[in-house]
Amino acid sequence: MKIALDAMGGDFGPRVNVEGALLAARQGGMSVVLVGDQKKIQKELHKTRFSSQTIEIVHASENIEMHERATESLRSKKESSMRVALELLKNHEVDAVVSAGHTGAFMASALMVLKRLPGIERPAIAGCIPTLKGSCVMLDLGANVECRASHLVQFAVMGALYSKIVEKKENPVVGLLSNGEEESKGTEVLRQAHQILKTKNLNYVGFIESKDMLKGKVDVVVCDGFIGNIFLKTAEGLVSAIFSMMRQEFQKRFFTKLAAGLFYFIFKDTLYSFGRRLDYAEYGSAPLLGLNGVVQVCHGRSSSRAIKNALLTAQKSVESHLLESLKGALESVSVV
Amino acid sequence: MKIALDAMGGDFGPRVNVEGALLAARQGGMSVVLVGDQKKIQKELHKTRFSSQTIEIVHASENIEMHERATESLRSKKESSMRVALELLKNHEVDAVVSAGHTGAFMASALMVLKRLPGIERPAIAGCIPTLKGSCVMLDLGANVECRASHLVQFAVMGALYSKIVEKKENPVVGLLSNGEEESKGTEVLRQAHQILKTKNLNYVGFIESKDMLKGKVDVVVCDGFIGNIFLKTAEGLVSAIFSMMRQEFQKRFFTKLAAGLFYFIFKDTLYSFGRRLDYAEYGSAPLLGLNGVVQVCHGRSSSRAIKNALLTAQKSVESHLLESLKGALESVSVV
Repeated sequence: MKIALDAMGGDFGPRVNVEGALLAARQGGMSVVLVGDQKKIQKELHKTRFSSQTIEIVHASENIEMHERATESLRSKKESSMRVALELLKNHEVDAVVSAGHTGAFMASALMVLKRLPGIERPAIAGCIPTLKGSCVMLDLGANVECRASHLVQFAVMGALYSKIVEKKENPVVGLLSNGEEESKGTEVLRQAHQILKTKNLNYVGFIESKDMLKGKVDVVVCDGFIGNIFLKTAEGLVSAIFSMMRQEFQKRFFTKLAAGLFYFIFKDTLYSFGRRLDYAEYGSAPLLGLNGVVQVCHGRSSSRAIKNALLTAQKSVESHLLESLKGALESVSVV
Repeated sequence: MKIALDAMGGDFGPRVNVEGALLAARQGGMSVVLVGDQKKIQKELHKTRFSSQTIEIVHASENIEMHERATESLRSKKESSMRVALELLKNHEVDAVVSAGHTGAFMASALMVLKRLPGIERPAIAGCIPTLKGSCVMLDLGANVECRASHLVQFAVMGALYSKIVEKKENPVVGLLSNGEEESKGTEVLRQAHQILKTKNLNYVGFIESKDMLKGKVDVVVCDGFIGNIFLKTAEGLVSAIFSMMRQEFQKRFFTKLAAGLFYFIFKDTLYSFGRRLDYAEYGSAPLLGLNGVVQVCHGRSSSRAIKNALLTAQKSVESHLLESLKGALESVSVV
């Protein structure tokens, strides 16, 4: 098993990527191919002890910065680290690619290099959202800001397959995120998607509100990438706001700082665990579904631990033959 | 001061409306005109002690049910309780209208009967969202599922005026809710609105993410009604999910049920207060801005306490001359 890692991606550059790669190689027994500026990568590697049997370097002369426009960087930077990594995957030199770089540019490059799965117009970022009953797959979490009805239908099909293959759910319940359950609710695009989804061979239950999704009423929830992003950031912001409020509350209510400290510690644990599970970034990474290749995106501010988790998840996806199952299932299903 | 209340509105019908009216009349010293089925209202009134000096009934023969389509009910039910209440306001027989009925139908009726303020194409529901620094005005919370750029610009202008007049903020900071701060983010409509807002005489800071909004970085946040609804329901769902998780956590961690009960009680307090503040419904109501009249919408599942609060808020809006100030300011501002 060999996985390519975009060593230049993310807010912290090669340092956390190299650290993450070493952790993953040690824990998962995989080989990691670090793609990027050879000198910079070697400089980081020399700070550590590593085995040349599990770590390789493939040089890439360019790097896409976070502020660049995806489309422009795609044209102007043909030797970017993410592009070179994706070419390795296309040429079967690695089994999967992981990147914490510019999500838009990564998605556009992946689309161009790997191409799409049959019947899929747009790949989507699929995240695992904690609910009161366990978790549900939510997609798209930010790859496509504006979507047509057909895109949403394809996300639903892919989400259901992902839920079956990876989460081992027999007959996953699928819902479309909306502002109410009634058929008359939603935007024009959502109502169109709803009508198409009713005709598909899916366990589709119609529109669902985000509060019911958090209660665990569905296994797969579909939305466009703009809404998915708003959902994630609202959740993240709320968890942190409630956390701050609680801390204040406890410092107010208890007589000793010691007691406050103790309870603060317990809160931190519970709230952070929920918050972490909500943030696909910190948690590790999220698969980009719909591409002809196993690809994991990480948040820009990923830690080395998050990079390690992303590499391990990619390894698991390859081992469980996710791509082959998706391909096979999509070929036998009419997607639109 | 006389306020008309749609006595048939809401999930619980005349009962909670009558109770809410009596509470408000007692607490605020206003007169409440209960509009709806006279017999049903009288039946509820007879269960209570009330003074005919503060409670009046105006009969309306029809009622718009929650499941009806707004546009159809508007055409077919000309004698609906909300419509009759709005006519009273139009004819200056009352100073404001409150309804917990079908929001879409109420908004459409209000638009038709009261008309819009100068320069405003669509009224918006404005809510007060708690932040770590206090609160911010968010609009639209659900009146307009799909918006054009000009609508969003008008919401920004109204939101800033509301923040000045009601929240007494000198020079309110205005942001546009998006999936990132960079100009390249957002949907096509958001980017258009952003370009127009930059030219307006507003303290406009550009795109803002929901997590920064919750930190209190802006005083006014603008979005379409679909996003506003998703935001509210996500917040509501999360608060309740975290609450459930904490309860479980505490029953697990503490040795005695007594201790768990005590801490549960403290949590409940803090979390519920945050949750309540997030839910415009439970909290009381939200003004429908942009109409030529003071109008408060309540959530369908409003309690009598929420109805009371809505009536008191409407009273305060009338007393603070919100409508006259908005009118004057809009006339002197080029809105689009």
